[in-house]
Amino acid sequence: MSDSRGARMSRRGLFGLGAAGAAVVGAGVVASNTLLDEAPVAHAASISDPFPFYGEHQAGVVTPAQDRLHFVAFDVITKNRAELVELLQEWTAAAARLTQGKEAGSFGAVGGAPEAAPDDTGEALGLPASGLTLTIGFGASLFDERFGLAGKRPAALADLPKFPGEQLIPEISGGDICVQACAHDPQVAVHAIRNLARIGFGKVSVRWSQLGFGCTSSTSRAQATPRNLMGFKDGTNNLKLEDAELLRDQLWASAQDGSAWMAGGTYMVTRKIRMAIETWDRTSLAEQEQIFGRNKGEGAPLGKQAEFDAVDFAAKGADGQPHIKADAHVRLAHPSNNSNAHLLRRGYNFVDGSDGLGRLDAGLFFIAYQRDPRKQFVPVQMKLAKNDALNEYIKHVSSGLFACPPGVRDAGDYWGRTLFE
Amino acid sequence: MSDSRGARMSRRGLFGLGAAGAAVVGAGVVASNTLLDEAPVAHAASISDPFPFYGEHQAGVVTPAQDRLHFVAFDVITKNRAELVELLQEWTAAAARLTQGKEAGSFGAVGGAPEAAPDDTGEALGLPASGLTLTIGFGASLFDERFGLAGKRPAALADLPKFPGEQLIPEISGGDICVQACAHDPQVAVHAIRNLARIGFGKVSVRWSQLGFGCTSSTSRAQATPRNLMGFKDGTNNLKLEDAELLRDQLWASAQDGSAWMAGGTYMVTRKIRMAIETWDRTSLAEQEQIFGRNKGEGAPLGKQAEFDAVDFAAKGADGQPHIKADAHVRLAHPSNNSNAHLLRRGYNFVDGSDGLGRLDAGLFFIAYQRDPRKQFVPVQMKLAKNDALNEYIKHVSSGLFACPPGVRDAGDYWGRTLFE
Repeated sequence: MSDSRGARMSRRGLFGLGAAGAAVVGAGVVASNTLLDEAPVAHAASISDPFPFYGEHQAGVVTPAQDRLHFVAFDVITKNRAELVELLQEWTAAAARLTQGKEAGSFGAVGGAPEAAPDDTGEALGLPASGLTLTIGFGASLFDERFGLAGKRPAALADLPKFPGEQLIPEISGGDICVQACAHDPQVAVHAIRNLARIGFGKVSVRWSQLGFGCTSSTSRAQATPRNLMGFKDGTNNLKLEDAELLRDQLWASAQDGSAWMAGGTYMVTRKIRMAIETWDRTSLAEQEQIFGRNKGEGAPLGKQAEFDAVDFAAKGADGQPHIKADAHVRLAHPSNNSNAHLLRRGYNFVDGSDGLGRLDAGLFFIAYQRDPRKQFVPVQMKLAKNDALNEYIKHVSSGLFACPPGVRDAGDYWGRTLFE
Repeated sequence: MSDSRGARMSRRGLFGLGAAGAAVVGAGVVASNTLLDEAPVAHAASISDPFPFYGEHQAGVVTPAQDRLHFVAFDVITKNRAELVELLQEWTAAAARLTQGKEAGSFGAVGGAPEAAPDDTGEALGLPASGLTLTIGFGASLFDERFGLAGKRPAALADLPKFPGEQLIPEISGGDICVQACAHDPQVAVHAIRNLARIGFGKVSVRWSQLGFGCTSSTSRAQATPRNLMGFKDGTNNLKLEDAELLRDQLWASAQDGSAWMAGGTYMVTRKIRMAIETWDRTSLAEQEQIFGRNKGEGAPLGKQAEFDAVDFAAKGADGQPHIKADAHVRLAHPSNNSNAHLLRRGYNFVDGSDGLGRLDAGLFFIAYQRDPRKQFVPVQMKLAKNDALNEYIKHVSSGLFACPPGVRDAGDYWGRTLFE
């Protein structure tokens, strides 16, 4: 075994080499992959270039899904609109630095004043950018009377209905502002959220926070489909960054949708879904596969051979019964059975320790992006909540809905400018 | 940016190639590193060879620290000694497979019966071994009257004293049996613990469980020193696998220590240490550095230049005061001030969401291995608990002490055989 295991590349060292050095890393990785004639390697790519921060859309949506998540929802505690805007500007500047592998601000030891608290907490010193993206969203509660935003609440940010069976915990639901941090290294994702919280001291308060790992839905055709904690491939038919036309139709909000400030933005739904994994683990393979409507090993639709074979909902087996049952998850959720409603899913597995009753507290932190939840998440989830055979093994315990503004165009722009100006 | 980001190498694909294929991966990674003239890359190594499972000592102690942790403590609920031994045998067989990148048992889709629950939960299908190690320990409570082990309780497994200031939560402390899973991929570590819990259904119950990331102490001189969530390098003077003589003297139990069954084993202390990170983040750099006795950027002892410079506790500054204060963490914890008592630390950072009071629930899950806690952890921690300037910012909320038996010698051996036979 190599002694290099576990050692880390210096953030400063990597970026001191500039783009040429980073490109060499990429080339080395590709070379080793091609010899294996296999899917490319996730972890090697974690040291490659950072993702661009500036752009028409926020990063972290169609960005090829990174492996780790730290998600936070804040309550705004200042009542001063100017202070909130100033915070968004400070956060934007910090995010532009953090996503490029830099510290949040000047670090005491290298230029800061020793009598002041450092402008970066330090735990990511020496770590590369690790593909960090930071994606902000505004919850419906921000559009109350505090900041004069009531008239700007988008129609698509309508409160979610109550879904049958959900058991939501208010303390870990909602929030005025959310930030999704995704990276290939959890320390980098945690460092980013923690520094945003530090910068927001006295203006925002952490309402709830969630760590996740193993993004359960690939968002690019170049990625292999990962598995959720039920052991099934998840996201085979996910909206992917290569689906340009669908992304335009179903992901990005347009000025014609009624809220001009959201043009280029998107709407994020979060659902923390606790799984009864101990019960699931004692369920037969045949039942598990019937519930999903796919086989477990390959992820192929029942009655088909390969993962990406088209699902045939009419096909019947020798017994005259449909291969895919009426209450199978894939049948109920499939766009062809939902007026062609797609979602860009970007959820993560979670394990939050144990529940005090001898069971792991584990499941899926579901995240989905879309142009209009009223036409996409809501009708699909209503159908699932009523009929999905999977409901016996899952429980929705938290919920969030956020309007994610368009991307930050350049260093003179900031998160939410179109909303506040 | 490469489209390969986030994709995953197939576990079967990797191992289908055998050792030669794995070596090629390593070579590719090394080639790209050398062009950078920097420390080697952690994440690329995560796809390299698995660590050996069989040996004189358990893996996961001196093994170069992996980046992710899933730790679990079980209560044994069967009262039947034979059933407990059978479980340990089943666990050992599963661990031998899991650590080598295989599934825990036959997976339904490829040979199992569809009417049976699969013998593997499936969420690691397609993932490489990722450096997984599984390390078992036995708590003092296992040595009660239930299993006839009272006479075999090692003297070194004496209950820890109550330390000043600790605020332990019984529900997340102790346990009859613990398993430490370390890997470069959290999904692999979680999969391993989850399958051990599945195998143990009806015989053991999950008492508590903890996820962690970013091992805060390097255990090999080839590893760069990582940082804890206070932003400081942690483990500069840790016991390391290259310290052969110290490991023999201070890490591994010997037959002469009084419990022959523990020869080749070691004792593990766990402490969940919650950090007041929001308060810490508002503390001046100078105060932070005085508390640790090291500077934050380089990790050098105060008054010195480089991380590995020897600490000089007598040296004074121009003001006549010692560079390193009387209550500095490094002074109180240093072996030279503790009868040369060393610890092999292997703790992990944790973030367990938020605490409902606007703060992140974050800190250090401390793990330390040693030959005799009565001579190592206990006196050092008693001194720290009484005097450490750091105490203002930390709180110990859980505690564990476990006897980790020697390694499993071969496929005919099992975890704890020397204890039960």
